[in-house]
Amino acid sequence: MPAAPKHRAAIVAAAAALFRRNGYAATGLADITARSGAPKGSLYHYFPAGKAQIGEAAVRAAGETVRRTFAEIDAETGNAGRLIRAYAGRLAGWVEQSGWRDGCPITTVLLETAADDDRMRAAGRAAFDGWTAVVAEALARDGAEEARALTLARLAISALEGALILARVEQDAAAILSAGDEMAALFAREG
Amino acid sequence: MPAAPKHRAAIVAAAAALFRRNGYAATGLADITARSGAPKGSLYHYFPAGKAQIGEAAVRAAGETVRRTFAEIDAETGNAGRLIRAYAGRLAGWVEQSGWRDGCPITTVLLETAADDDRMRAAGRAAFDGWTAVVAEALARDGAEEARALTLARLAISALEGALILARVEQDAAAILSAGDEMAALFAREG
Repeated sequence: MPAAPKHRAAIVAAAAALFRRNGYAATGLADITARSGAPKGSLYHYFPAGKAQIGEAAVRAAGETVRRTFAEIDAETGNAGRLIRAYAGRLAGWVEQSGWRDGCPITTVLLETAADDDRMRAAGRAAFDGWTAVVAEALARDGAEEARALTLARLAISALEGALILARVEQDAAAILSAGDEMAALFAREG
Repeated sequence: MPAAPKHRAAIVAAAAALFRRNGYAATGLADITARSGAPKGSLYHYFPAGKAQIGEAAVRAAGETVRRTFAEIDAETGNAGRLIRAYAGRLAGWVEQSGWRDGCPITTVLLETAADDDRMRAAGRAAFDGWTAVVAEALARDGAEEARALTLARLAISALEGALILARVEQDAAAILSAGDEMAALFAREG
């Protein structure tokens, strides 16, 4: 009897949550199965190649969730500076609510695996490119030249990623909020 | 017979190299001992509390090495903008030379352990504060107001940390070099 398709999504969501919190190496297939509520057979049914395949799917799914959030906030704010400040505000709230446990849903996994796993690296690249594209398009809409918009968008994604590391270590969201404010000011000057 | 003091440094250096490349969870005590060349007994002699204690020592040692590098480059360049560009250039070279394997010596370990380990978090915080202080002092020397210098220095460290993640995933140092250039331009405008 094939596993129900809903189990695939549950497995990917469980894996993404565990990787985000504990990292890739520290998360076992048994942990993923237990958290997902899916029967063991469904894990091997959907992911015959095992943990690396689940990791790639988790990075792709989490990357798309973040991209959609960026796009939703962009539709609400309508301006690149307000977008990046609003995203930083939400990010600060999420990481604080998690007791400083949940970082970027893809960074820890990528840092652990990128060197040796081409598919994981491609999934990470697609995620970063998707987020950058939303911010770059907002900047271009505000009047920035295309290449400049891409440079500034990549800087903003880098600054938020780095600030999230500081925030988790400091157990204080100040670094994230400050990075959002500074990027918004830079966008206003150059956008 | 007590282990020679040199073994402590060899153990910490081996642990830092393995954590940087493979992460904390994926690195075993046997890997550390093998790479360090130290006898097994010395590991337990210097680190009776085991892996977490080695992890903290590795984060502190790697943090201090990076701080010293920032200070050396600052002494050579004498200006905050040139400092951050020169550091970004060296960082780009290191990560490329490692085949995109070596990231920040402390980030992966911190992301894996910060939520549950106060001592590791304190070690990480000391490292980030040390790097930030060198950059902030350079900015203040260039004329920036003290609080503003700290904000800009923390932004620069965040941007480089985040850009290093992008660079490893993209196997291209462009994100790091661009972050260095953008931060230098911001420093020149505000420093």
